[in-house]
Amino acid sequence: MMVPRPPTVVIQNVTPLIDGGRYPVKRCIGEDLTIEADVFKDGHDEVSAVLKWRKSGEARWHETPMLPVPNGQDRWKGTAAFFGAGFYELTIEGWGDTFRTWQHEFHAKVAAQQSDLTSETLEGAQFIERAAALADGEDATRLRAFAAEIRSGFPMEVDDLAHSPELEALMASYSDRREATEFTLNSAELIAFVDLPGGAFGERPLDPPSPAAKAKTGKRKEAREAVGVQPSAALDDPRYNPTYPRVWLDRELAGNAAWYEFFPRSAAGTGERGSTFRECLPRLDDAKAMGFDVVYFPPIHPVGVTARKGRNNSVNCEPGEPGVPYAIGNRHQKCPNGGGHKDVAPELGTLGDFEWLVKQASDRGLEVALDFAINCSPDHPYVEAHPEWFYQRPDGTIKYAENPPKKYQDVYPLNFHNPNWRVLWDELTSVVEFWCDHGVRIFRVDNPHTKPVAFWEYLITRVQRRWPGAMFLSEAFTKPKMMRALAKAGYTQSYTYFTWRNTKVSLTEYFTELCHSDAAEVMRPNLFANTPDILPSYLQYGGRPAFIVRAVLAATLAPVYGIYSGFELCENEGLWKSGVDPAQDVRRFLHLCDTDYKVLAKEEYLDSEKYQWKDRDWEKPGNIKDTITRLNGARRENRALQQLRNLHFGRADNDLVLYYLKVTPARDNILLMVVNLDVWHTQDAIVEVPLELLRLAPDEPYEVEDLLSDERYRWHGRRNFVRLDPQRSPAHVFRLHRQTNRTTR
Amino acid sequence: MMVPRPPTVVIQNVTPLIDGGRYPVKRCIGEDLTIEADVFKDGHDEVSAVLKWRKSGEARWHETPMLPVPNGQDRWKGTAAFFGAGFYELTIEGWGDTFRTWQHEFHAKVAAQQSDLTSETLEGAQFIERAAALADGEDATRLRAFAAEIRSGFPMEVDDLAHSPELEALMASYSDRREATEFTLNSAELIAFVDLPGGAFGERPLDPPSPAAKAKTGKRKEAREAVGVQPSAALDDPRYNPTYPRVWLDRELAGNAAWYEFFPRSAAGTGERGSTFRECLPRLDDAKAMGFDVVYFPPIHPVGVTARKGRNNSVNCEPGEPGVPYAIGNRHQKCPNGGGHKDVAPELGTLGDFEWLVKQASDRGLEVALDFAINCSPDHPYVEAHPEWFYQRPDGTIKYAENPPKKYQDVYPLNFHNPNWRVLWDELTSVVEFWCDHGVRIFRVDNPHTKPVAFWEYLITRVQRRWPGAMFLSEAFTKPKMMRALAKAGYTQSYTYFTWRNTKVSLTEYFTELCHSDAAEVMRPNLFANTPDILPSYLQYGGRPAFIVRAVLAATLAPVYGIYSGFELCENEGLWKSGVDPAQDVRRFLHLCDTDYKVLAKEEYLDSEKYQWKDRDWEKPGNIKDTITRLNGARRENRALQQLRNLHFGRADNDLVLYYLKVTPARDNILLMVVNLDVWHTQDAIVEVPLELLRLAPDEPYEVEDLLSDERYRWHGRRNFVRLDPQRSPAHVFRLHRQTNRTTR
Repeated sequence: MMVPRPPTVVIQNVTPLIDGGRYPVKRCIGEDLTIEADVFKDGHDEVSAVLKWRKSGEARWHETPMLPVPNGQDRWKGTAAFFGAGFYELTIEGWGDTFRTWQHEFHAKVAAQQSDLTSETLEGAQFIERAAALADGEDATRLRAFAAEIRSGFPMEVDDLAHSPELEALMASYSDRREATEFTLNSAELIAFVDLPGGAFGERPLDPPSPAAKAKTGKRKEAREAVGVQPSAALDDPRYNPTYPRVWLDRELAGNAAWYEFFPRSAAGTGERGSTFRECLPRLDDAKAMGFDVVYFPPIHPVGVTARKGRNNSVNCEPGEPGVPYAIGNRHQKCPNGGGHKDVAPELGTLGDFEWLVKQASDRGLEVALDFAINCSPDHPYVEAHPEWFYQRPDGTIKYAENPPKKYQDVYPLNFHNPNWRVLWDELTSVVEFWCDHGVRIFRVDNPHTKPVAFWEYLITRVQRRWPGAMFLSEAFTKPKMMRALAKAGYTQSYTYFTWRNTKVSLTEYFTELCHSDAAEVMRPNLFANTPDILPSYLQYGGRPAFIVRAVLAATLAPVYGIYSGFELCENEGLWKSGVDPAQDVRRFLHLCDTDYKVLAKEEYLDSEKYQWKDRDWEKPGNIKDTITRLNGARRENRALQQLRNLHFGRADNDLVLYYLKVTPARDNILLMVVNLDVWHTQDAIVEVPLELLRLAPDEPYEVEDLLSDERYRWHGRRNFVRLDPQRSPAHVFRLHRQTNRTTR
Repeated sequence: MMVPRPPTVVIQNVTPLIDGGRYPVKRCIGEDLTIEADVFKDGHDEVSAVLKWRKSGEARWHETPMLPVPNGQDRWKGTAAFFGAGFYELTIEGWGDTFRTWQHEFHAKVAAQQSDLTSETLEGAQFIERAAALADGEDATRLRAFAAEIRSGFPMEVDDLAHSPELEALMASYSDRREATEFTLNSAELIAFVDLPGGAFGERPLDPPSPAAKAKTGKRKEAREAVGVQPSAALDDPRYNPTYPRVWLDRELAGNAAWYEFFPRSAAGTGERGSTFRECLPRLDDAKAMGFDVVYFPPIHPVGVTARKGRNNSVNCEPGEPGVPYAIGNRHQKCPNGGGHKDVAPELGTLGDFEWLVKQASDRGLEVALDFAINCSPDHPYVEAHPEWFYQRPDGTIKYAENPPKKYQDVYPLNFHNPNWRVLWDELTSVVEFWCDHGVRIFRVDNPHTKPVAFWEYLITRVQRRWPGAMFLSEAFTKPKMMRALAKAGYTQSYTYFTWRNTKVSLTEYFTELCHSDAAEVMRPNLFANTPDILPSYLQYGGRPAFIVRAVLAATLAPVYGIYSGFELCENEGLWKSGVDPAQDVRRFLHLCDTDYKVLAKEEYLDSEKYQWKDRDWEKPGNIKDTITRLNGARRENRALQQLRNLHFGRADNDLVLYYLKVTPARDNILLMVVNLDVWHTQDAIVEVPLELLRLAPDEPYEVEDLLSDERYRWHGRRNFVRLDPQRSPAHVFRLHRQTNRTTR
């Protein structure tokens, strides 16, 4: 533990740092984190700095040297790599480097031909001897040898020795950090500590507290209160407790995954009756064959009967209709845990059947994600057991959900700030814990923005403490600040506005924000191309080519994406659709999809399986399962597609052609995506290849291979021609092959 | 005190907030502080928010409503006003406004002609009854009357009543804030608190601690350590201690003052002998007559004799030469306090004489600023009493200052991190306290960037706790980040790069940064036009017109500025000067002054009074005392010139003409400055008057009055012509007069 004392070095403006360190930065295993900071010192001393990190709770730091950013004006940079999901603490340690300062000053004096450098020579030798004392074995021997040589050297010799790379390396390894300063979030307390009135000077209250020191604490507190000083941890406790910026590290799947959503009750593809968990294997096999990583089920719990909705959201439900899985809870059904969130709907099977299905998925390399929807039907056991958790009318009855003038009589909202809130928060958390105990680690959370952000911070923190691999996907289609707040509070991933970004301008703007702003440090986009609630106009009108375009965009713009089943079959029958002919004015149509899609079409599916069992031919002709399989294969084989912050938009001279690149830091995996957003007409474009970025020489030929069609093109230089026929191939996913080491004509 | 519990409302991205709240924002008396923040809540509730502030140590908050920023996407804004120098705490309180939410929902239901609103009506009445219970007197009566009317009203009537301005105002005054959330810097602790493992749920540890609760704390701590939870104040103490952002409020002089620097020993203007404090009255009278607020003295302490420097920084000092006042300390002189920083040089007089002079200044409305230069001559009493405070050579002798290959044998630098640092820090602070006890409140600090930033934070905090009006001017001509770090650590004002900003482009860029970036929240520029160390090339070459130009810029670009005596006499003899003829290529010359002035001239004065007594005719012909008097008068009479953040650069179509405006928020005081930077040639320009900014109609005539010449011009519309002859008047300081309510031809 470092002795608390005032800083010697100034370390400020650390980036990334979310809300002054209030929230952790997010990374997942395999992702580096580059930290920058201003590090400087008073006077003329040379400064050195290291970046340090450790798993929370561990004592030992890992560290790596920080380097000055070229022309950075005291800006330093270092990169940390992490192993093992969980919280990490991070700091920067900087110090005035006595050896390097001496080295520079000695050289200046030699260069100025100063006469007597005896004292300076001795000083240098002493610095090296001190390093030798810190070192062991061969290092110590070498350092002692250097010290001896310097001690007896002439100034010119000393100056040469001082700059020998071996000595420099050794001195960097054993540098004198007795006066080093760590960056902490509560460094103000250090000053408060020095500033302690009433005789603190000359004392040494920074050592581990003796019984006597403990007795003094009380007195100091009184003295402090007498002069109106704010209390601080450093003052209350002779040992200063530094607070460090934190990093939350997720497992790899959090940052790189393809999701496939289906309703288990529709797995068999017949509208006659509901399927069971035991009938879901063909869906798993299909998802696996297409290359997905996660299969996500909408709620699987007992469905309420009071005010149950019928087909197409009808308020009249015919007998035998299955109801909406989001109206959760039926205490009238026979279930082991009361018929609420800790049970599966008996019509799907038993908890045992569910566990069997999770195992089957796992055997195929798939993970199951569950929906966590805090919706209680009037039949939910909570309603009976804890009426105080709900909102009540003046007459004592429980309020159903409303967004006036709309009414949702089949759902009772919870009051998260009711007087018995602690028990409610605990119970809801225990629901997630229950499913973790049954093998689930991924939760897609329904409408988190209608529950307190603080509740999510509490729940996610508590669950991830036991299961650091637990993941939470926020389904918050709401205002950007709330989406970011949920991400900061702990959500692993977030749905985005992707479905409503259809023009080149809006896609470019939005993905620049998602991948390159502060948001990218905490919020991981999961690009669902459709959901049971969202059948975008672009898909409704554009048909099969539109499905391919959106699949390519979703799968390559970000490393996490998903589709809701039926997408691969190009299901695009909406509940209602206007008479617009998009092919007449494609630009205006795309713009409408972006900004005012409601004038075009409602986004609800016709005969949505939210309300009914669904007839489906899972091998329907015209399906795009092959394209999706190729996309998922490309994602798996190309590391550039597995990263978020490596997206670059390129220039294409046609505003209906979107062109972007994904590139690994070493430039050893380069993908170029060219997408024709106009699914009704063929479009041409000259695309500019950023040779400098890719480290290609201007005259270096290279090949691009379309991973969707296996076609290869020999390209050359900066400008290359592309033609995209939406019926044949609306998009290219090119992998670039360098031609170095080959003879070219 | 608010009960700690998880937040209901999200309050984030508070601005300004310096380093996440680590440092206070600075304001001075009379300056408002506008705070913005994102404030939002889960669900559909209406949100309300107030900005709150209080003097640190006081219990009661002042508050003002915050308003949503138009199109601000959940951004809110409020303005605080402060009284009395010292620290303030500041927070934002937000809450889901049950009444306003009810009001909106009720209206939506009435509009949708929902049938039975009995329950909703009752609910509304209950909200109002609750407000009535919080209110007294007439307010309570009125609220009860509203509640009764609503209780018995038909829906349409209720809806009307609910929107009555009187009820809205009353409900805003007595809003239900039981579930309000405050913004704090340590809100993470609230979550940690909820998250307490081991049976915390259902307990109510948030009440004032009972003896039983105190006994429990120990157990909880054990439980926490068992699961590896980080300790936090909220967990250690059942009462959560919120930490709020802080504001440091200075007295008015900190933000608006004109400084005049002179050496007391040269006050009489004779090179034969040194003057005394008792001979300084004519200087005070002159400074007062010119309109200055602060007179600043370079060090007045005993001057060292060892290695004393002679005229023009000669290493050979003739007997009788006075030495450099910055080589402080002479224990061989007879002084009451040992001859160091707590004594005045006997040749200037006694401490009593000094106190007399401070009183004389005060009687004239002037304040004395002292130099705090932590330089110790080899003769300083510290050297003998505390050799451990200094750097030592391997042979045990004390090191003099060096910046290799330069040597400063007359000064010993202090080692601020020596093992006995606490005693050193305390002693140096006591120096400032000593002079505060002798009536001084303003300290100009020499080279603070060569001492630890933490030391300054400590010293300034400690001094300002006893003397909240104490002010510190940082003389840090160093890298921008260090300058800002010193400002954040507590410096009231800072010297700037102003003397090296001479072109239109560089002045515009630099003052945009100083007045409109984050820096402006903590760093107050003090624009010295010259100093004993800096006689800028522009003044050396430009002569009298250049002195006027720089005086106008210094006095009007920022509300705090200063000159070093001799400036008003246009003293411009440098120690050395190149043969450049600036009039040949004015643009290049100005640029050289900005970026590479050293090719033009050294900035040292010839026969600088740093090293000798100075012959001077304080009424030297050609002096610009009248211009300076007019500038200081204009500053005093025009509030727009007394503010920092109200600077706007205007457009002038000549790159040698700088044009800028200073405007009060109410637009009732508008100044337009037009400056010819070319002091060799007459320059013309069309200047654009930003009519919208000034709230002038396009056809509204107006007059501008030159406060330097009393000339008046009738101007019209946006574009107006200006001609500036450097010999006659190189600059205009126009006050704009509206012509409303006058008959114009």
